[in-house]
Amino acid sequence: MIPFMASRRIITLTTDFGLADAYVAIMKGVILSIAPDAMLVDISHQVEPQDVREAAYLLWCSYRYFPPDSIHLAVVDPGVGTERRPVAVTAPRGLFVGPDNGIFARALIDQGAVDAATGRLLAGSAVILTESRYWHHPVSQTFHGRDIFAPATAHLALGTTISALGPDLASVMVGADDAPTHRDGSIYGSIVHIDRFGNAISNVAASTIPPRAVVQIGDRELHGLASNYQEGQLVALIGSSGMLEVAARNASAASVLGLRVGDPLVIRTAP
Amino acid sequence: MIPFMASRRIITLTTDFGLADAYVAIMKGVILSIAPDAMLVDISHQVEPQDVREAAYLLWCSYRYFPPDSIHLAVVDPGVGTERRPVAVTAPRGLFVGPDNGIFARALIDQGAVDAATGRLLAGSAVILTESRYWHHPVSQTFHGRDIFAPATAHLALGTTISALGPDLASVMVGADDAPTHRDGSIYGSIVHIDRFGNAISNVAASTIPPRAVVQIGDRELHGLASNYQEGQLVALIGSSGMLEVAARNASAASVLGLRVGDPLVIRTAP
Amino acid sequence: MIPFMASRRIITLTTDFGLADAYVAIMKGVILSIAPDAMLVDISHQVEPQDVREAAYLLWCSYRYFPPDSIHLAVVDPGVGTERRPVAVTAPRGLFVGPDNGIFARALIDQGAVDAATGRLLAGSAVILTESRYWHHPVSQTFHGRDIFAPATAHLALGTTISALGPDLASVMVGADDAPTHRDGSIYGSIVHIDRFGNAISNVAASTIPPRAVVQIGDRELHGLASNYQEGQLVALIGSSGMLEVAARNASAASVLGLRVGDPLVIRTAP
Repeated sequence: MIPFMASRRIITLTTDFGLADAYVAIMKGVILSIAPDAMLVDISHQVEPQDVREAAYLLWCSYRYFPPDSIHLAVVDPGVGTERRPVAVTAPRGLFVGPDNGIFARALIDQGAVDAATGRLLAGSAVILTESRYWHHPVSQTFHGRDIFAPATAHLALGTTISALGPDLASVMVGADDAPTHRDGSIYGSIVHIDRFGNAISNVAASTIPPRAVVQIGDRELHGLASNYQEGQLVALIGSSGMLEVAARNASAASVLGLRVGDPLVIRTAP
Repeated sequence: MIPFMASRRIITLTTDFGLADAYVAIMKGVILSIAPDAMLVDISHQVEPQDVREAAYLLWCSYRYFPPDSIHLAVVDPGVGTERRPVAVTAPRGLFVGPDNGIFARALIDQGAVDAATGRLLAGSAVILTESRYWHHPVSQTFHGRDIFAPATAHLALGTTISALGPDLASVMVGADDAPTHRDGSIYGSIVHIDRFGNAISNVAASTIPPRAVVQIGDRELHGLASNYQEGQLVALIGSSGMLEVAARNASAASVLGLRVGDPLVIRTAP
Repeated sequence: MIPFMASRRIITLTTDFGLADAYVAIMKGVILSIAPDAMLVDISHQVEPQDVREAAYLLWCSYRYFPPDSIHLAVVDPGVGTERRPVAVTAPRGLFVGPDNGIFARALIDQGAVDAATGRLLAGSAVILTESRYWHHPVSQTFHGRDIFAPATAHLALGTTISALGPDLASVMVGADDAPTHRDGSIYGSIVHIDRFGNAISNVAASTIPPRAVVQIGDRELHGLASNYQEGQLVALIGSSGMLEVAARNASAASVLGLRVGDPLVIRTAP
């Protein structure tokens, strides 16, 4: 039983490949050809094409709900075939495999694995995936998901140590800091995600919100936080990932308010 | 081998979460963290937001094709965080876990597990999921799929008995009865689902249809039942779930006839 | 361990059923009821309804990345319930199960298993799925995916030999030959697929392209082949499946050029 159990690692997949093409299935075929007992779980393949920020958000939302030895493979890779580095990163909760373009930044910062400002590693290790014996050959210039990331992930699932895959890295890319700013007792945040229900999720964490909060968004002011989606026609509440979100009862808050990702919101304290 | 095999239970998932967000993956992460050998099968995550009736239809279509010890987790849950009860129900063919809002009604009635009029249990048992040691903590007010339903499902997959999860229930919610009515020798039914091909599926069961049936739908009359989709430009036939459906050859009957869910149809006997 | 490992076969699924309905899940339920340890991998369920050619393309793209004992179940089946034959075909790389309507032609021709012109078998074997003890009963006239193809696939995964499923076939259907033509030193090809990124993939193989190629598509001429997607605003390059494709940097080439499947392109040699 031991060899079997040892290889039954969870591998999550996050891409912008969509589900109509065969790209995701091809990566799965490559992985299962090497690591037949891996447990594959799709996070999302509907990331907007080339939207690294959105993929980073989805990974941040979800990584903590998987076992710490899970491997998170993410391929939103506008720079494929150029100088951007293919990497693997170990962290307290999970291994992360994909392009070094900031896609793992939020998840790594969240668990204290990298410094938010510089990308310097604070825990674990990172390598560039240069060891070609762990690649799928021939290597294309357009589909490193299949040729570099999927086989690296599969070998890690089998127990290959990260250091076998290439030389060490001291830091990884982190994108622009999109944390809210605090000024004059108010919090200036923004919408970072709009979900299928039209809930508009912000970058403002529950723990930073003052009592008697007033949320100003678009031309509306929402007084106080609701405890569930049914409590008002339009409510501000703490969503399931611990961030302030704006929701409409059985409707899309984003449509009602005309919201888009990047739109600002301000949290004040009621006088 | 026995511990492994014992836990390889099928868990199906039906939600209105869509596949772009990470919500489905988060539930899978929670389940697999508890029951790593569960076999997860998606039924659909494209249920229209908050459309409990549509989810109930999809569960009714599919539950009978899974092994009887499968666990069907369904989360279309407009009342999350309010007084609606989180429940688990055992039935001759399957365990059902989700909000008590009628989502399991069709599947449970179909197998004789609950009374169609009152929701009273006729076979098996049901509990309210109040035992907090089987929850994922902290419990949010907006995502019981993650915090209550997914962990309950995983513990059931591991062999926890339903009675450990909370106090017994004598009945569960059943929605409005949407069975067809019979009057003056005619059957008055309605369209309950339109599938990807535009086939319009009704609530009229094959066994109730008279010989020499004439189906009146929109401004058309269809004489007799076809045996396959190629038999005419527009045909009535018995679909794969045993219900009368209206289909167009290599086209969408719903588009051709302008049909929507809820539209009426009448079945008469040809004179 | 041996019985378990023996049955852990990969089964891929390709259909035009979409992901909103329960049809795919129903097939999975039937498969797992017979072969509980099968490893199911979705290739695509978003094939345009009844577009056999598109499914054939997706299978051709992906079959080679799966282990050779994988079973590829494909159901795009406009002729369900009519005279078209349900078949299983063995080939050097994979077993193929589905309707005999050309859906496997590209994958089988690609691996030398059938003759491109006649469909005659050159390697492996094929049968018609007539043995009703391997069907799911009752058999509908509208969903052979559930009633014939899924159970046949599951029994093959368990080790049933193909010859048990029905009588031998000497040839299978192959569609119209859509290979490019060569004339006066030029290659006359066409667009066979447009992917989620708007990359327009042709039927012109890398190995047939002359040095100093000029690609004429729509009203544009593209000189030379790029090595990655970032090398120009609009580029011709060899895509990940070894075919010439046209791509736009961080944009959709199909939108920029107004391209659709079937559109012609010409490759000349620069003077």
